Amino acid sequence: MFFASDNAGPAHPSIMQALIDANAGYALPYGADTIMERVRARIRELFEAPEAAVYLVATGTAANSLALACMSEPWQTVFCSPVAHIHEDECNAPEFYMGGAKLTLVGDSDKMTPDTLHKAMAAEETRGVHGPQRGPVSITQVTEKGRVYSLEELAALTGVARDFGQKAHLDGARFANALVALGCSPAEMTWKAGIDAVSFGGTKNGCPGVEAVIFFNPEKAWEFELRRKRGAHLFSKHRYLSAQMEAYLTDDLWLTSARAANANCRRLADGLAGIPGVEMLHQPEANIIFAQMPRAAHQRLNKAGAMYYVLDGDLNKGDPDEPLPCRLVADWSISAKQIDQFVEIAKG
Amino acid sequence: MFFASDNAGPAHPSIMQALIDANAGYALPYGADTIMERVRARIRELFEAPEAAVYLVATGTAANSLALACMSEPWQTVFCSPVAHIHEDECNAPEFYMGGAKLTLVGDSDKMTPDTLHKAMAAEETRGVHGPQRGPVSITQVTEKGRVYSLEELAALTGVARDFGQKAHLDGARFANALVALGCSPAEMTWKAGIDAVSFGGTKNGCPGVEAVIFFNPEKAWEFELRRKRGAHLFSKHRYLSAQMEAYLTDDLWLTSARAANANCRRLADGLAGIPGVEMLHQPEANIIFAQMPRAAHQRLNKAGAMYYVLDGDLNKGDPDEPLPCRLVADWSISAKQIDQFVEIAKG
Amino acid sequence: MFFASDNAGPAHPSIMQALIDANAGYALPYGADTIMERVRARIRELFEAPEAAVYLVATGTAANSLALACMSEPWQTVFCSPVAHIHEDECNAPEFYMGGAKLTLVGDSDKMTPDTLHKAMAAEETRGVHGPQRGPVSITQVTEKGRVYSLEELAALTGVARDFGQKAHLDGARFANALVALGCSPAEMTWKAGIDAVSFGGTKNGCPGVEAVIFFNPEKAWEFELRRKRGAHLFSKHRYLSAQMEAYLTDDLWLTSARAANANCRRLADGLAGIPGVEMLHQPEANIIFAQMPRAAHQRLNKAGAMYYVLDGDLNKGDPDEPLPCRLVADWSISAKQIDQFVEIAKG
Amino acid sequence: MFFASDNAGPAHPSIMQALIDANAGYALPYGADTIMERVRARIRELFEAPEAAVYLVATGTAANSLALACMSEPWQTVFCSPVAHIHEDECNAPEFYMGGAKLTLVGDSDKMTPDTLHKAMAAEETRGVHGPQRGPVSITQVTEKGRVYSLEELAALTGVARDFGQKAHLDGARFANALVALGCSPAEMTWKAGIDAVSFGGTKNGCPGVEAVIFFNPEKAWEFELRRKRGAHLFSKHRYLSAQMEAYLTDDLWLTSARAANANCRRLADGLAGIPGVEMLHQPEANIIFAQMPRAAHQRLNKAGAMYYVLDGDLNKGDPDEPLPCRLVADWSISAKQIDQFVEIAKG
Repeated sequence: MFFASDNAGPAHPSIMQALIDANAGYALPYGADTIMERVRARIRELFEAPEAAVYLVATGTAANSLALACMSEPWQTVFCSPVAHIHEDECNAPEFYMGGAKLTLVGDSDKMTPDTLHKAMAAEETRGVHGPQRGPVSITQVTEKGRVYSLEELAALTGVARDFGQKAHLDGARFANALVALGCSPAEMTWKAGIDAVSFGGTKNGCPGVEAVIFFNPEKAWEFELRRKRGAHLFSKHRYLSAQMEAYLTDDLWLTSARAANANCRRLADGLAGIPGVEMLHQPEANIIFAQMPRAAHQRLNKAGAMYYVLDGDLNKGDPDEPLPCRLVADWSISAKQIDQFVEIAKG
Repeated sequence: MFFASDNAGPAHPSIMQALIDANAGYALPYGADTIMERVRARIRELFEAPEAAVYLVATGTAANSLALACMSEPWQTVFCSPVAHIHEDECNAPEFYMGGAKLTLVGDSDKMTPDTLHKAMAAEETRGVHGPQRGPVSITQVTEKGRVYSLEELAALTGVARDFGQKAHLDGARFANALVALGCSPAEMTWKAGIDAVSFGGTKNGCPGVEAVIFFNPEKAWEFELRRKRGAHLFSKHRYLSAQMEAYLTDDLWLTSARAANANCRRLADGLAGIPGVEMLHQPEANIIFAQMPRAAHQRLNKAGAMYYVLDGDLNKGDPDEPLPCRLVADWSISAKQIDQFVEIAKG
Repeated sequence: MFFASDNAGPAHPSIMQALIDANAGYALPYGADTIMERVRARIRELFEAPEAAVYLVATGTAANSLALACMSEPWQTVFCSPVAHIHEDECNAPEFYMGGAKLTLVGDSDKMTPDTLHKAMAAEETRGVHGPQRGPVSITQVTEKGRVYSLEELAALTGVARDFGQKAHLDGARFANALVALGCSPAEMTWKAGIDAVSFGGTKNGCPGVEAVIFFNPEKAWEFELRRKRGAHLFSKHRYLSAQMEAYLTDDLWLTSARAANANCRRLADGLAGIPGVEMLHQPEANIIFAQMPRAAHQRLNKAGAMYYVLDGDLNKGDPDEPLPCRLVADWSISAKQIDQFVEIAKG
Repeated sequence: MFFASDNAGPAHPSIMQALIDANAGYALPYGADTIMERVRARIRELFEAPEAAVYLVATGTAANSLALACMSEPWQTVFCSPVAHIHEDECNAPEFYMGGAKLTLVGDSDKMTPDTLHKAMAAEETRGVHGPQRGPVSITQVTEKGRVYSLEELAALTGVARDFGQKAHLDGARFANALVALGCSPAEMTWKAGIDAVSFGGTKNGCPGVEAVIFFNPEKAWEFELRRKRGAHLFSKHRYLSAQMEAYLTDDLWLTSARAANANCRRLADGLAGIPGVEMLHQPEANIIFAQMPRAAHQRLNKAGAMYYVLDGDLNKGDPDEPLPCRLVADWSISAKQIDQFVEIAKG
């Protein structure tokens, strides 16, 4: 019963098999492998972006930091949600890669709105050379609270960015989960909605460790290659990144896995919804939910070995009926049986 | 007939199998996996260093850059050979991670000597706050020219560093190849010879992509963890790094593979040695050789699809007898048949 | 009628005379001049800190950025007010000097409180290696809104910092203005209140361009010297910095000038207070006030050539009675006549 | 008898007077002062460069570091002499401002030649994304050994840079000394010889502390302004920089002072030339000479209080006739009497 994160489950067997298959004979290093050629072509096709620059790295933080570094200057500030992964969970990696740029936290929610974003961007305008300069906007889709921006919401945010002459980055660590939730095409969720560059996640959706960075305008392609190498993120035996991504995109595995994860989350939410004292922060939109459950339920789950984050309060001491908030993440691999077992234990 | 680099051959099947084996169920992310516990214990045991801090990253450049960043300050300069990988092949990654520190090139050879090192370190002493300050020494073992420092040579270099109050880093991208060449223990080639931190390579010796960083004094352990995360080199699904390293160290696979690579290189050198017009830069010590071969030999090999670097001169035009220099690298996987075929074609 | 800033008035004639006096014969460069010896001794005496490390730079941004860089690590975050100069007016210089560290904005006021600071510092605690790590607190005295922290307030804030194992920096660009407002000693406003390092401003209080950086614990002295040189802030002809600071501290000129500036501000505030439609944001505590004045008053002042910042709204268009906010800063040099003239015009 | 450096003598009285004159009333801060307008116009006129971007900073290291940062990328390497100030005397400031770029040391002399430069630049070409990328060339005029590049030599070096698609920077800390030595115009020594940006020194030639940075193509003007502010080198009371530079350029003071310094150096060299056992490294070309003098001469001078750098050997112990090398720098202010006295004592 592991609901702590989607980074702890097993990789999909097809992807592991692809690693084995890729391990035959010699392959040109540093991204010149033939699998990467196919990956590039496939991603361009999927995104309806024949000119796009496409690169692979092994971690989501690398994807975000390198993409943002190509899109900003060290004297700028990047606009993002106060709970954005780039702000809260990357130990200043974006600032490191951007050469000391800032992040400006927009509003007080996981979702920026055109209003909060406009207000934040407008506020940087009156100080000439003295203040931080406006930089790009970074949008997390699925948000860290498990919510999904609609296409209209995305377009509105990138419109605000463009009004200020700035570009938009999409942190798509859970890109597939959002895509199947919206039921739209990759192009619709990105460049058609005004997104300039994407961190396209594989790791949280069944890959051992691979993320693509996609620039729809390839003008910074060579700069990205230099930044990736200088950041020590260019793999010599690159074929093992390529093979993961190829398998991930083959036969819609990425979509199938994301649908499974979202469905698992929905099953969990539905199960929990009927329990007295359990309250959802919001309806499940992708594969993460935040819920309040009575302390006693947490205690039973903890005792049974369920793993997930209780976000506040003392698990062990206090009123058994007091609601304590928690985060629950479902990946593609969790079984219906385990989900139902979790719900049963929560019920008590 | 692939002799271009030891980063283009296949990974060892045992290591691939270990990845498959590691892919069962849930595993704690970010280095908290149980395989990593075993890897840490195993490396401490191998190096007779029960206190050592041990970490995994996926690229050699990351290992070097992060290790050196922990050992230096931004106003210092690191002493290394002018052909050191950290200088020539990492696109300023060490400078990036060190926050703008310099590299001082020592002597004009792949091997530093106590004399050239002393001279270089002494030269930084008279400028007070104005000049770059002395930083650590970084030694590459096996060198980029395929040579191996003896234990006495290593100890002499680290002794010079220590005389100036500085620490010593070993870039061991080909650690195993050197170790089996010297026939000594890991401890003898490192901390017993005065080395403070090691980049312990796996990728060039049969792993898909994993390197260990080992600090014999763990005082910078937490700083390394922060620098690794901030550099975007902390893997969420860390088990796939751990599994590679565990398999690499199991049943002496790392030593067996290195012995195979070195033997393959020796076979190649022996075969080439008898050919008129072929001259070795030096006798093979590990798995890299540099040789002069007549242009005509290069042309035949090229035509036959052999892959390796011709370092200077026009392959296609000029006197067929003119010797052109080349680099030949053997990995564990190249077959005797392919080696012999290469030699035959070179012979003409 | 110049109330735009205290960085646009003339320097005090005594300080200019000191520059002339310093310009005789040869003087050792780079801070080894004999005037600097006296400055160091004088500052140590004034601050009752015989061990303090004392340095001079030419800009307040350099003082803040270099001090904070010595007190923090690149993976940390510095806690400060959302209107702190280091956040709003230094174009990412602190982030640049700190190597990519963050600033965390505390509360929503110019004054941090123990509560808002505690809350902000506590919020950084649960993410291990993933989140930014806690760094020092930076307190601005006088605040950017013209308010002065009491000694108790300062001690409470530094106490919170210490509870989290962190140090405290004082941005004292207007140190003297605060000191005379509080009527305390330099030691009381700094190390006795828990401050570890101070940016001690001269430029805004009658110097052409000099700021001292004072570390009460000199352990980072040599690091500061290296960072200052590496930041290109070490003056070769350092005597011209020393001479400014010496004159500034001679015969209590710094205190006299600050008292004059504060009194000028008080006179301005008193004059404006009686005008219908004028409202003060708060009572003047040092030499800056924020006031609302009717648009018509701003228009008259503007027409008369008065210079100051109207912070919001269209000066030229709209209801003449609508109050528009402005900032008014008085320096030591503004005359009573000019102040009274300003008030008269504001009255209409 | 001060021949240690041209950074320890007094500023010219006219320049000090200009500071006093500038100290009247209010002046717009941050470079918007009216004196700066005149300085900009004057420098454009002097350099016959009506479009040039012109800025002032207070130190030569700031001028060099900021100029180079605007001309390079962090993954590049800057080509310069191994004795260049930017390499030996700026404590990694250029690397800091450039974000971790390298310096490549060209040849083994104070003067680069087209051959050594071509060889160094060509050597960076074969490594694709792996090696440091080629960046601009930085030429020091007057060199650190006191020599002056001819216009032909400058043009040849910048031609090599251009052949590789790179720009050229001139470190003109002693610009005026070189200009009067060559007897050419500022335009001839800079953009007409292929120079793109200049650090135009004032400090070593009679100013308290001011340097101009001049970009003949203003495309990076705004970037420079941001980098200057972010480097904490934008002065609020900028008029005191402007006033120095204006006085420096008024009535040819900069040229008169440089001629005086060069003549003083020539007088010194002529006096020393006739002394047995004294040998010049080369004929004086500007205001610096390197000479060998017998230990006994150094001892007499030292005893008499003469200040200059003995570069090697033990002043106090050894054969009195043994020649020890020294550096002698003359500024505009040293008197003929002091020079002659120095020569007399050297004679013994």
